Amino acid sequence: MPQEDVIKTVMKQYIDRFNQDDVEGVLSLFGEEATVEDPVGSPAVEGKSAIAEFYKKVVNGNTRIRLEGPIRGSHSNSGAMALQITTSAEGKTISIPVIEVMTFDEQGSIASMKAYWGPGDMVIK
Amino acid sequence: MPQEDVIKTVMKQYIDRFNQDDVEGVLSLFGEEATVEDPVGSPAVEGKSAIAEFYKKVVNGNTRIRLEGPIRGSHSNSGAMALQITTSAEGKTISIPVIEVMTFDEQGSIASMKAYWGPGDMVIK
Repeated sequence: MPQEDVIKTVMKQYIDRFNQDDVEGVLSLFGEEATVEDPVGSPAVEGKSAIAEFYKKVVNGNTRIRLEGPIRGSHSNSGAMALQITTSAEGKTISIPVIEVMTFDEQGSIASMKAYWGPGDMVIK
Repeated sequence: MPQEDVIKTVMKQYIDRFNQDDVEGVLSLFGEEATVEDPVGSPAVEGKSAIAEFYKKVVNGNTRIRLEGPIRGSHSNSGAMALQITTSAEGKTISIPVIEVMTFDEQGSIASMKAYWGPGDMVIK
């Protein structure tokens, strides 16, 4: 089980690399068999090549993640964080408050990511 | 599947009733077969009578929950929220940033609660 500080460091790297539009850097944080469910309730994206396709779309130069409050650890291999995600489309700004929960493998790679946000959470201006 | 606004209303009631030291009110939000894992990584508390024992300990008149940011929904039966929990013991104030994820049954009762916080998250003053 990776240590709590390793989990939090990787989660912080995930945000920083995302905000630098560093897709390869984001992908390098995931394990080969990882899964991504974003939003929770949608079909999970499974395995690193499918996850690569997913992040190539969402790391698009105009999507930014702001961490809100401290990253939370757990008493196992999980961490959780509250985020504000902002993007734009068709001249509109889209803001979504999101909570992401991640689990980690023995090597400290992301094994799963779940992003909690609902249709009612999206604010379009 | 309960609607997103039902999920968020119940999660807000959970906080409000907890802060009013209304143990019975908190318990009435849970389904009979519910589980509570607090913190994540500890053995789950299973079933309503075990959950009653758990909340009779933690709803103790000096533990308060502050919601940080909006409660997040999902595209399924889940919600998530960022909290700051404050309590006291032996003359010390204990603050813990926590993220709670809940799932809900068809009736809008809490089916599971997971509280993400790690040993390194606790601040004692």
